[in-house]
Amino acid sequence: MAKEKKLVEAITSMEEDFAQWYTDVVKKAELIDYSAVKGCMIIKPAGYALWENIQKELDRRFKETGVENVYMPMFIPESLLEKEKDHVEGFAPEVAWVTHGGANPLQERLCVRPTSETLFCDFYKNLIQSYRDLPKLYNQWCSVVRWEKETRPFLRSREFLWQEGHTAHATAEDAQERTIQMLNVYADFCEDFLAIPVIRGQKTEKEKFAGAEETYTIEALMHDGKALQSGTSHNFGDGFAKAFGIQYTDRENKLTYVHQTSWGLSTRLIGAIIMVHGDDSGLVLPPKLAPVQVMVIPVQMQKEGVLEKAGEVRSRLEKVCRTKLDSSDKSPGWKFSEQEMRGIPLRVELGPKDIEAGSCVVVRRDTREKIKVSLDELETEIPKLLETMQKDMYERALAHRDSHIYDAHNFAELEEAAENKPGFIRGMWCGSQECEDRIKEELAVTSRCIPFHDKEQISRTCVCCGKEAHTLVYWGKAY
Amino acid sequence: MAKEKKLVEAITSMEEDFAQWYTDVVKKAELIDYSAVKGCMIIKPAGYALWENIQKELDRRFKETGVENVYMPMFIPESLLEKEKDHVEGFAPEVAWVTHGGANPLQERLCVRPTSETLFCDFYKNLIQSYRDLPKLYNQWCSVVRWEKETRPFLRSREFLWQEGHTAHATAEDAQERTIQMLNVYADFCEDFLAIPVIRGQKTEKEKFAGAEETYTIEALMHDGKALQSGTSHNFGDGFAKAFGIQYTDRENKLTYVHQTSWGLSTRLIGAIIMVHGDDSGLVLPPKLAPVQVMVIPVQMQKEGVLEKAGEVRSRLEKVCRTKLDSSDKSPGWKFSEQEMRGIPLRVELGPKDIEAGSCVVVRRDTREKIKVSLDELETEIPKLLETMQKDMYERALAHRDSHIYDAHNFAELEEAAENKPGFIRGMWCGSQECEDRIKEELAVTSRCIPFHDKEQISRTCVCCGKEAHTLVYWGKAY
Repeated sequence: MAKEKKLVEAITSMEEDFAQWYTDVVKKAELIDYSAVKGCMIIKPAGYALWENIQKELDRRFKETGVENVYMPMFIPESLLEKEKDHVEGFAPEVAWVTHGGANPLQERLCVRPTSETLFCDFYKNLIQSYRDLPKLYNQWCSVVRWEKETRPFLRSREFLWQEGHTAHATAEDAQERTIQMLNVYADFCEDFLAIPVIRGQKTEKEKFAGAEETYTIEALMHDGKALQSGTSHNFGDGFAKAFGIQYTDRENKLTYVHQTSWGLSTRLIGAIIMVHGDDSGLVLPPKLAPVQVMVIPVQMQKEGVLEKAGEVRSRLEKVCRTKLDSSDKSPGWKFSEQEMRGIPLRVELGPKDIEAGSCVVVRRDTREKIKVSLDELETEIPKLLETMQKDMYERALAHRDSHIYDAHNFAELEEAAENKPGFIRGMWCGSQECEDRIKEELAVTSRCIPFHDKEQISRTCVCCGKEAHTLVYWGKAY
Repeated sequence: MAKEKKLVEAITSMEEDFAQWYTDVVKKAELIDYSAVKGCMIIKPAGYALWENIQKELDRRFKETGVENVYMPMFIPESLLEKEKDHVEGFAPEVAWVTHGGANPLQERLCVRPTSETLFCDFYKNLIQSYRDLPKLYNQWCSVVRWEKETRPFLRSREFLWQEGHTAHATAEDAQERTIQMLNVYADFCEDFLAIPVIRGQKTEKEKFAGAEETYTIEALMHDGKALQSGTSHNFGDGFAKAFGIQYTDRENKLTYVHQTSWGLSTRLIGAIIMVHGDDSGLVLPPKLAPVQVMVIPVQMQKEGVLEKAGEVRSRLEKVCRTKLDSSDKSPGWKFSEQEMRGIPLRVELGPKDIEAGSCVVVRRDTREKIKVSLDELETEIPKLLETMQKDMYERALAHRDSHIYDAHNFAELEEAAENKPGFIRGMWCGSQECEDRIKEELAVTSRCIPFHDKEQISRTCVCCGKEAHTLVYWGKAY
């Protein structure tokens, strides 16, 4: 009993200290562990299983659009990194440098890839000769390194896992279309699979990716009202192509530069899953993502026939969803806490009385609702409950997000919202970076995006300088 | 027509120059490309798709034995690498060192992992407290770096993809059992899935992994008679546990060291697939592995109804196997060459006459056999042909291997075989490293393994020194 208490006590409540709650969940749900390498995390089985499911589903969605996977070297020679001016300025300050191979100093330093635009460009330069070679739609799953000073599990670490897509197209229109297409793949994936609603939009000039012409983003709202950039898609135009000399012969036999895109999504998203859906008992996983969807927990296991029946229920459920049986010698209460901490969507409680009544008690992780289900209807009722839970989790996250969007018509209102109303703040923007800088410096709020689907002109003047403004921006504090 | 000729001409024949043939296939089948980073390769879509299928199948087999996936940092602090004496001696000379993060020198150098024993040990040290925590059966899929001087695509490169399993057990027996279990998983996988027969056996002391008590291996024979070590499994005993202090409280409440294993298999295996099955027309892929199993190629495509019928055949076959249709505007001959170069197991040729006769011509990649198949029986006949081809490929590789095993009873016979008979040489060994060293130096032949399933005493004396010998060793030249 003492041990059981410990598990629950160990979590700080969200209201008390959200940051500590996050760290507690990440550790107690056994998603990560700290490593001997400062700023790098160990992703444990429960955490990695989430990434595997994300990978599997996203990879399927990529391939449906014609994307193929490749693998590029993890090192970039310094001279290659330097080829595109904006890009190197953005990344050079935060890369790890390899200077020695064995005992010998290298002739040229290599950085561990922070992202692989330069490698793909160098590859495409030789690969692409004719319009027949286009488009190239390549992606890779790998880890990248950015030498961050402050790190937090999943949200910011020196090494993280991600995918990076890199495409080359014949025309500017094709590149733009692909940029938006992949942003939509990300957004649909977040909404359908992770039950996380996102705002789709464009980054301002200031917030763009180093070297991009345009950067698009999906922004999700965490439980504490902070935003998390959850995936980005970049249109490079022909900037990289010119820096690297990637030309093809078009149908008229003319040498032409390709147009390129890149798009990435990382283990950061696991942070979003925790912070959108989690509660004071731990993780809450959307059923489509959950590595284990149903945990069968026998009650009064020592009584004759209970464990046998529980095994039977597990076997039947395994055929319709990802099911496990906890037959360890821990107490049922302890098992309930563990299942809750790990965010397993449903638990099936089964004791002698249930068996006698020909039913079991199903408990939803999100609402804690207890539902009596006839043992005869397991195979139909459990998948239905999983489906309902997935839908409800999305609706709840959407309602939370929508109730945390505020309008600011002037600087005073923006200040008031930034200080007291965690969430997205809608405010008109004149387009000047000065205003963006001032808002960031004074209010610690940044432009999250210029949304695609919200073009309302809530006023005619910039929320910062009061000058004429036509662009609606979502502002917010962000991870 | 000139272009078509080029594709075929570009491959050197195996007999003429096996090494050049290998390089030609690797490039022409579009498996890899060279990169801007010396010794590192770009794995292109056709190559990466092989790795994806290997990964998927092997991962499934691992998980069936209770293995879970994790992800560890790619960096190892120098002090951590140095904790186990033999291990650091084995790896330090060939690691890449990171010395700077951004503009700042690091306080301690980090090496890019060449393998992750030390990281797993450091992790297990805190994770494992009680016998209840055992066994730990973790695996990771990642890339590793070894600063090799001479490199060849897939076979030896400075960075390669692999999986590394790391397990911790309560007893020496459990560790030994797991070591052999995983070797058998590798062997069965190679034989069932890749149609590559392997010799299962133990490495000699000299050939063991740095830090291991015992190393086990699977050895495959390439078409040129050289051996390729295709997967290894190591038993560490409690050596690493003592170096890292990994102790648990056993059932009697006594502090005890864990026993550990590790096992790895890499993209090197793609080299084996090429060199076991390939021929002078390119790659030959075993059907179970092949990303595309059937290529439908229309003949006289411009004739009415041909393309439509080909599309219909594709749609029907897609339901039973991985099928593509080549409807590009290249000539059929060109398409045949491409399909052969890429090693696609079957091609379905379909022209106006075939359609009229209600049949198609199926050509097997391995035997070139042309088989007339009625269009009514596609869904049953094609999968049957794939199955037969898989089986035949294994049998052919086995026959080739078995016909290249020679016995040597003394040094003269060993020398004669080493010089003139490419293959495995069976020879008794007294157990001294002196003999092993002499054989390696004078004949460029190494001990591949002490086989599990061949314990014949072909003589009573060592093939090298003539002293008493009880151990049969398979010797050979190796990649």
